[in-house]
Amino acid sequence: MNTTYDFGMIGLGTMGRNLLLNIADHGYNVTGHDRDADKVALLEKEGSSTGIKGFSELTSFVNSLNKPRAIMMLVPAGKIVDNVIEDLLPLLDEGDLIIDGGNSYFADTDRRFTMLRDKGIHFFGIGISGGEEGARKGPSMMPGGDKNAYEVVRTIFESVAAHVDDEPCVTYLGPGACGHFVKMVHNGIEYGIMQLISEIYGIMRSHMGLNNQEIHEAFKSWDEGRLKSFLVEITADIFLKEDDLTDNMLVDMISDQARSKGTGKWTSQLAMDLQVPVPTIDMAVAMRDMSKYKTLRKALEKEYRNPVASDDIISIQDLENALYFSYIISYAQGLHMLSQASEEYGYDLNLASIAKIWRGGCIIRAELLHDIYNAFSSDPNMQHLLLDEKIRLQLLSAEKGFRKVLVATTSAGIATPALSASLTYYDMLRKGNMPSNLIQAQRDYFGAHTYERTDREGKFHTDW
Amino acid sequence: MNTTYDFGMIGLGTMGRNLLLNIADHGYNVTGHDRDADKVALLEKEGSSTGIKGFSELTSFVNSLNKPRAIMMLVPAGKIVDNVIEDLLPLLDEGDLIIDGGNSYFADTDRRFTMLRDKGIHFFGIGISGGEEGARKGPSMMPGGDKNAYEVVRTIFESVAAHVDDEPCVTYLGPGACGHFVKMVHNGIEYGIMQLISEIYGIMRSHMGLNNQEIHEAFKSWDEGRLKSFLVEITADIFLKEDDLTDNMLVDMISDQARSKGTGKWTSQLAMDLQVPVPTIDMAVAMRDMSKYKTLRKALEKEYRNPVASDDIISIQDLENALYFSYIISYAQGLHMLSQASEEYGYDLNLASIAKIWRGGCIIRAELLHDIYNAFSSDPNMQHLLLDEKIRLQLLSAEKGFRKVLVATTSAGIATPALSASLTYYDMLRKGNMPSNLIQAQRDYFGAHTYERTDREGKFHTDW
Repeated sequence: MNTTYDFGMIGLGTMGRNLLLNIADHGYNVTGHDRDADKVALLEKEGSSTGIKGFSELTSFVNSLNKPRAIMMLVPAGKIVDNVIEDLLPLLDEGDLIIDGGNSYFADTDRRFTMLRDKGIHFFGIGISGGEEGARKGPSMMPGGDKNAYEVVRTIFESVAAHVDDEPCVTYLGPGACGHFVKMVHNGIEYGIMQLISEIYGIMRSHMGLNNQEIHEAFKSWDEGRLKSFLVEITADIFLKEDDLTDNMLVDMISDQARSKGTGKWTSQLAMDLQVPVPTIDMAVAMRDMSKYKTLRKALEKEYRNPVASDDIISIQDLENALYFSYIISYAQGLHMLSQASEEYGYDLNLASIAKIWRGGCIIRAELLHDIYNAFSSDPNMQHLLLDEKIRLQLLSAEKGFRKVLVATTSAGIATPALSASLTYYDMLRKGNMPSNLIQAQRDYFGAHTYERTDREGKFHTDW
Repeated sequence: MNTTYDFGMIGLGTMGRNLLLNIADHGYNVTGHDRDADKVALLEKEGSSTGIKGFSELTSFVNSLNKPRAIMMLVPAGKIVDNVIEDLLPLLDEGDLIIDGGNSYFADTDRRFTMLRDKGIHFFGIGISGGEEGARKGPSMMPGGDKNAYEVVRTIFESVAAHVDDEPCVTYLGPGACGHFVKMVHNGIEYGIMQLISEIYGIMRSHMGLNNQEIHEAFKSWDEGRLKSFLVEITADIFLKEDDLTDNMLVDMISDQARSKGTGKWTSQLAMDLQVPVPTIDMAVAMRDMSKYKTLRKALEKEYRNPVASDDIISIQDLENALYFSYIISYAQGLHMLSQASEEYGYDLNLASIAKIWRGGCIIRAELLHDIYNAFSSDPNMQHLLLDEKIRLQLLSAEKGFRKVLVATTSAGIATPALSASLTYYDMLRKGNMPSNLIQAQRDYFGAHTYERTDREGKFHTDW
């Protein structure tokens, strides 16, 4: 009988329990702690074949672990994380490792990292994506923290993570809070893609008049091509699901008020601090917010009608082009943000590694990530994804259909905020000369903010 | 000879000096302080006819003022404001009034307000817009703080502010930091409008091939119609200005890398915290950031060409419709944000008053603000500007031309991020049913985040 354990988990909600069961399945002796005795009992029941052990009391849990102890928390982000650390501290020994597997704000992780380092405790922020099923069967994991300490858990993480081409979807990413930062941007990209898919659905439903079965078929066929991805796959599924409570399809009974946990918002807000444009993500955040104002929208709908429909015909293939193009733009924006963050915070991130571990297990896994991985593998210092030749050809192949879609929706009054943001981002980013010389002129005109010139160095001011 | 003064200014840069000279012109005895003796000398020289007095030493400056003392700071936002307050405190008496006239972050103003209230000192955050010329001749002023203390300076402010229809562009707005909050949103709207104008310029320059003279004429004629506004007026001027250093027009020699002081960014970031969509402003912030990446843009320009030009013809009148429509949307987004902030922070803002004091003096002054003022005057609790009947008719009158412009630019690859964001905001906000029911389905599918239904109360989860 085991009396000591390799790995401990604090917080036995579905995610924590599933991840722990996953680790146990791979032959590790693991133990869990939750104040809620029912959750402890559920863990022991579900993991009975693996000798998994649970404790509702913290000290016994800590004492049951081999040293250096590896303890992961999967508890709600915020104050609770600090409370757990505070409770743990008197029970730990120097060299032990605390891992925060939740969606903590990266600046909190930085603060905790420094505080614990001063006490001789290693701290890891690790982003885990894949939802409940991913945790159970193989998530994508994004760890950041002290490199040597990572060795304590490396083999465990590599065993339980999702695998693509026999390689685990986990790798040491860098120091400090960079694991949580990368996970945050992952979620920002996820927000963008979900908004894009919902807009495509809006076009199918409102402009093309497709029924749920037809919408299912479109997404299903796309999931067999270059758009193959988890989010397209589950979207196809969703349109087949019948409602248990009425005779309708379930999707039609779901309220359009979209909730959020804040990681998309953080991505947009920090992108602005880092001065990186991520407009597709910004728009996804804005539209989740807009969805709150149901009463207002219903009142406005009565007063503002759609324009007379144009006779532009768009096809399912045009929509596929639109979504594929925007997919590329979403990843490009997120990765651009990561490269700027890496410079600003000294993370020294390897974008190829990040694309690699996103290929499996996580919510934004997609066929496209193989190309993105290849792009950054062949040129690790590439400043922007759009500089890659293969990506360029993919964009150009989808461009015409994408423009056709937006011409039709613009005429017809179908809203495409994130799709439009993706195309206008592309159209502006490839302009050597933006029209913002005028903005600088205006700022100097009314505020004497000075401007720079195209033909010589320095700051200039004009008495306009 | 005066030995006591009615009003004191700390920070004699151009803004502070100009505002003080403006107050002196209206018959008040005023005094200024700056550590820089040259600036003090310049103040006394420029204001010699009014008996204006300057001090480079703080104690003498403070002692020269009538009690309760009214002292305004116009110093750079941030730590310097705290330093000035710290230096002042030992010299002040209970009941004195400190006014921060800079672009301080509203949360800093809240903190200072509370700290000073506990010491018996009144603190005002006041937004001042109008640039250097506005400060000298009549700015728009947005004060927030203790209502009774406002009486000390009310007549001074009402004298020096810009006037429209014989009414001053200043009024007490509410408690705490609301003056700085309103000024921040003012600047957010300013960012949006400047970006929109620059995109219109981009269309004229790149798509229509107009020269600077023709662009001047378009803006000049618009400034004589419903688009009459400070920013359109100065834009018309800008295209006439010759360069002193070359034979070109100045606008063509100005670099397209747009700078910013951060108030637009704060507006977008706080809108996300308040869960109000302000996508036109978001896009303006993103495009200022994008303008930084000059080398990247030039590299991409070589690889990504414009699509073959469409044969859509757009007219100057279509562009006028596009800009007018987007102007309305920009103000609507900013005012919506203010109404949500008012609820969240308990400011009890009167949107009609705000529109009223924006009609003159400030950077976003515009003919349109008369209609906005009327809209909120007749219905002070109106949730959103688009609910007003007259505004609705204006939007509908401009809609067709706006769509025509975006259809053409979408086909031709001309970038219109803020214009597109304005139209897609409109198109989504008037949808009683957004397609975001799909987002809720996805979130429940992969993360068990639950969803709400259209036909009954509660939270639901499906095993997909």
